[in-house]
Amino acid sequence: MFRASILLALLLTIMTTNAVAADKARWAIAIHGGAGGLPHDLPAAELERIRQALQDALKVGSDVLRAGGNSLDAVQAVVRIMENSRVLNAGRGAVLNHEGFAELDAALMDGRDRRSGAVAALRHVANPIDLARAVMDHSPHVLLVGDGAEQFAQEQGMPRMPSDYFITERRRKELEKTLEAAKHPTHTASIPWQPVGTVGAVALDSAGNLAAATSTGGTVNKHVGRVGDSPLIGAGTFAQNGVCAVSATGQGEYFIRYTAASDVCARIQYQHKSLETAAREVITELKAAGGEGGLIAIDANGTIAMPHSSATMLRGQASSSQPPEVVVEVPQ
Amino acid sequence: MFRASILLALLLTIMTTNAVAADKARWAIAIHGGAGGLPHDLPAAELERIRQALQDALKVGSDVLRAGGNSLDAVQAVVRIMENSRVLNAGRGAVLNHEGFAELDAALMDGRDRRSGAVAALRHVANPIDLARAVMDHSPHVLLVGDGAEQFAQEQGMPRMPSDYFITERRRKELEKTLEAAKHPTHTASIPWQPVGTVGAVALDSAGNLAAATSTGGTVNKHVGRVGDSPLIGAGTFAQNGVCAVSATGQGEYFIRYTAASDVCARIQYQHKSLETAAREVITELKAAGGEGGLIAIDANGTIAMPHSSATMLRGQASSSQPPEVVVEVPQ
Repeated sequence: MFRASILLALLLTIMTTNAVAADKARWAIAIHGGAGGLPHDLPAAELERIRQALQDALKVGSDVLRAGGNSLDAVQAVVRIMENSRVLNAGRGAVLNHEGFAELDAALMDGRDRRSGAVAALRHVANPIDLARAVMDHSPHVLLVGDGAEQFAQEQGMPRMPSDYFITERRRKELEKTLEAAKHPTHTASIPWQPVGTVGAVALDSAGNLAAATSTGGTVNKHVGRVGDSPLIGAGTFAQNGVCAVSATGQGEYFIRYTAASDVCARIQYQHKSLETAAREVITELKAAGGEGGLIAIDANGTIAMPHSSATMLRGQASSSQPPEVVVEVPQ
Repeated sequence: MFRASILLALLLTIMTTNAVAADKARWAIAIHGGAGGLPHDLPAAELERIRQALQDALKVGSDVLRAGGNSLDAVQAVVRIMENSRVLNAGRGAVLNHEGFAELDAALMDGRDRRSGAVAALRHVANPIDLARAVMDHSPHVLLVGDGAEQFAQEQGMPRMPSDYFITERRRKELEKTLEAAKHPTHTASIPWQPVGTVGAVALDSAGNLAAATSTGGTVNKHVGRVGDSPLIGAGTFAQNGVCAVSATGQGEYFIRYTAASDVCARIQYQHKSLETAAREVITELKAAGGEGGLIAIDANGTIAMPHSSATMLRGQASSSQPPEVVVEVPQ
């Protein structure tokens, strides 16, 4: 009887350990390519390139996580692919500001210890997300902006790209149309809500660590020097182990004022709400205040939420138990 | 009997109305001149100038509130005085970066509707807090940085100040000493914690509106382009009517990663903690994570909390029921 008890206890221990091990092996990732909706006149070939960019990015992130890599490396790799795609609003192919050039923002955050790196108002760095990572790893700072950030990029051995590197024909026409539509100077007009394509990723790795990354060119026709929510920790990007990781997209000024990303986590941590409820509430409150957009969020269990109040949000997800899925909706 | 009831009801209504009116007439304000502690060798005359700057600022803010002005105007006026003082780390007299010039950040936030204005990495604007207000009032954006922000200042008719305008002899010596002490390049060395003097204010006006404002030169010997917590909504500055208003000071990178200012409000709103408890918890957790500093916070009742984990924090407070009090501690 005594021996049977010990045997049962051992068996239960092994089963529990296995269950924990299986649980710990779980990984999940979500990505977004921006909220808003694509232009109605977008050529089919361009639409296909967007879908391909999202699929490629999701695959790279999944590969990192499947191989046991950490979530921070995964979200950085995902964002780098999208920055290089030429068809999303980040890195090469980003929207143009009022003066006709791209100014880029990015941030990432490690949920393990909340270490963060962020950059803003970059004009000559091909991959802002890599510079954000360098700020995290090789400086005592969290956020570097403007020519000081460019100087840091050079200190880190990153090549200085000419402005033309970032500009695509589609974005040039988009700015022309926007300038045509705006009768007032940009700084006194309210921002018309336009389809954008900020990119981002959140991930849970097999060690249980959460991470988030976001990269953007901001809003079309923005004032030079304007910084949105993407590179601001707690606004557009946030990660906290055991709670959640968030990357946002939409009318950035509202996401800043409502500290949208960290508010999702605060509702989970302090109000014990589910990820789904917390994420939906924040997007709903932003919408009620006048701010449209969406976010992707993941919790410590690998649950994913992707609420958006905009017509569409380009997005994708994959996990150790679910095949990759990419959603590219064209508004009717 | 019926008439007596009506009379009693009327009487109670009047009493209640009076009580509410008296409550609504209450205003309160808190200010800070930075956490850290003053240098031991600070001349007595300089110490007196610091005390005077805080007293002047507190008086100006109190005057605005006593006259029925709104809390946003009050905190802006307070911060402007401190930016002009030459003896605090904001505006004229701010600390110098690695290259030997001042780069200034500021933000303010209106608790009524969470409208916010912020600027960062300014080199030529005498009063960053006034430019932050202009961003709030005259642009669709929340945050402008670097030369884009300088350009906006010119569009707003603000004069362009030469770099020398901001530099004081004390700050020049402080940078020299810091550079001497730093054996490594600034971007690879960890930031030594040094006395700083970020300035800020939080206020409740007689209409029940909360507001917060913060302005800083950041950290001595910082990398060009480094932005700290002060101009970041939710990190160093936050205001939300009915909940609280916060202005922080200290090792900014930690305040960013922990979204310190909005976390105080989240604990009040979501966990129903008192202002005192919420503010103390945040500063304690930051300290445990390695980040030193302090904050001033005010809630919807005009209660003020000013916790700090640093040796000292220059601070002051006043209200409709309390005489002004300024605390300038010199560490032993």
